[in-house]
Amino acid sequence: MSVKIGPIAETLPAFLADKDYSQVIVLVDKNTKKHCYPLVKGLLPKHILVKIKSGEAHKTLNTCQKIWQTMTDANMDRHALMVDLGGGVIGDMGGFCAATYKRGIDFIQIPTTLLAQVDASVGGKLGIDFNGFKNHIGVFQLPQTVLIDSVFLKTLPFEELRSGFAEITKHCLIQDAKKWEEISGLDFEEQNFDDLIEHSIEIKKKVVAADPTEKGLRKILNFGHTLGHAVESYFLEKGSKHRLLHGEAIAVGMICEAFLSLERGMIDQRLFDEIEEFVFSVYGKVKLKPEYIPAILKHTLQDKKNRGSKVRFSLLDGRGSCAFDVICNKEEMKRALLYYVG
Amino acid sequence: MSVKIGPIAETLPAFLADKDYSQVIVLVDKNTKKHCYPLVKGLLPKHILVKIKSGEAHKTLNTCQKIWQTMTDANMDRHALMVDLGGGVIGDMGGFCAATYKRGIDFIQIPTTLLAQVDASVGGKLGIDFNGFKNHIGVFQLPQTVLIDSVFLKTLPFEELRSGFAEITKHCLIQDAKKWEEISGLDFEEQNFDDLIEHSIEIKKKVVAADPTEKGLRKILNFGHTLGHAVESYFLEKGSKHRLLHGEAIAVGMICEAFLSLERGMIDQRLFDEIEEFVFSVYGKVKLKPEYIPAILKHTLQDKKNRGSKVRFSLLDGRGSCAFDVICNKEEMKRALLYYVG
Repeated sequence: MSVKIGPIAETLPAFLADKDYSQVIVLVDKNTKKHCYPLVKGLLPKHILVKIKSGEAHKTLNTCQKIWQTMTDANMDRHALMVDLGGGVIGDMGGFCAATYKRGIDFIQIPTTLLAQVDASVGGKLGIDFNGFKNHIGVFQLPQTVLIDSVFLKTLPFEELRSGFAEITKHCLIQDAKKWEEISGLDFEEQNFDDLIEHSIEIKKKVVAADPTEKGLRKILNFGHTLGHAVESYFLEKGSKHRLLHGEAIAVGMICEAFLSLERGMIDQRLFDEIEEFVFSVYGKVKLKPEYIPAILKHTLQDKKNRGSKVRFSLLDGRGSCAFDVICNKEEMKRALLYYVG
Repeated sequence: MSVKIGPIAETLPAFLADKDYSQVIVLVDKNTKKHCYPLVKGLLPKHILVKIKSGEAHKTLNTCQKIWQTMTDANMDRHALMVDLGGGVIGDMGGFCAATYKRGIDFIQIPTTLLAQVDASVGGKLGIDFNGFKNHIGVFQLPQTVLIDSVFLKTLPFEELRSGFAEITKHCLIQDAKKWEEISGLDFEEQNFDDLIEHSIEIKKKVVAADPTEKGLRKILNFGHTLGHAVESYFLEKGSKHRLLHGEAIAVGMICEAFLSLERGMIDQRLFDEIEEFVFSVYGKVKLKPEYIPAILKHTLQDKKNRGSKVRFSLLDGRGSCAFDVICNKEEMKRALLYYVG
């Protein structure tokens, strides 16, 4: 899969130059229609614009049915192209709709959030939520290309930017000790995002290429995500007032899972302290209460890495290094969460 | 993909012997639960049985949601196996549910109709109908194996057996002149089905291997299916009383499309006469009326082989030989259907 980083006014026309699509459909939400579509509209041939509701709550089969219906009504054939212009929800769901319409049409990702640029858009994981389970129904399918332009980040609120930075932090921790030292020595405001985006994508591409369907190595990308997802799902269930952004939940998960690594003797106290200090300095501390823990633990059982009722973790085993398929029991998980609660 | 032909009591245990699935789910409908499941039940480890309603009318997202929900409720993980025990509907829909549950679990096909044995189960086309459009939402994904046993055919009604024979006839016409001579010289009752099943699967496997996602050669498998599907959809829309089995519709399609081949000078009158005589002798003549034709033609526009508004055919261009991407206009299609009407 090709990922092109640079001005969209150059990369998009270059991609389209030698193509001959029968029709083009562009998927946006309210935000990307307003802030991003104006930058892309003039670069595309005649197309159909489909606006869907923003947010994870709409990443459902219902929304897919609306998208498929629009494609059907427009008599789109197999030689059509879908352009997903937005964050993770648009990319995951639009990609899924494209990959399943008439058994699959071409699609490209133009991620417009930092999180989608450094994570969701690379690697071909597509899908939707199903009855509260995240990304429960989906497929692996690579887009024709991913076009990344930091111009889209200018309209992002601070929290969204910081959310994406959690995946950047993760990529450094699991694969690049030197880069970890570099970013952990800087404040959030001092980070060089253009450089970090490229760095993160390189790491993700390399890992995904080695194991596209997550049979082994690719699992290391889940560091921070087992308890992180569980915390995220817990807050999602509690209702929108308490909602955590993905990266905010992963920040919690990285501290808890670094704690598991420490307890197992896989990393030393010094690295753990560095991680804890840096993550707290960027994200602060999420208000978790001890009484939330049983419900959070329940969510870990549906993690896709698991086999049977055993919960499998990807845990750091050094600076810039990560192991996978590490089974931790309920007591260990509980201790890690309790440590975070403090 | 491996296809094993032989007693299920041997092939199924042999497949499972070196596997270590965390759970097994078996998909059946009313008929296969009654007639086929008893032959398979004892060969499987502990499993979950899911019964869905029989028939194309239930090959929908709604049924998928029930299947996905059952899998979720059972906490099935990515290391589970789905066994699709049934005809085309079970295989296409069950395969689709397996291929999309947690981004894909293993599945095997045990086709129990002649049609599914010689056609649907081989080639990895999975999917469901969407608002009346056949196989509109789906993916290409190969099963772990396909297990074929003619014992399942013993419980099939005559019409179902004859329906599957249409695909056998097609395979001979598009790829094997000698076999065409063989079958066209025999009455339906005289055919050697064990031999023909193996022959059909060999042809289908060969064509699919050369072009898994139907970019080119695989399209020849659609001979008889462009107008055939349109006729089938038309009767489906008219309501169940007028329903045609798939093979009965394809029989109509083969005559109409052989007529297109003849008109274009791609085959000679002798071959056309042979086809017409043989197909009528097995299937009789379906009561098509001239006033149905406009609605039938409308259905051809949604054919997945098309590009834009042009309707593309796979047409015979000799004995045991077939061309693809032959564009025919509305007038030609109309003449072919009118010829059939007589």
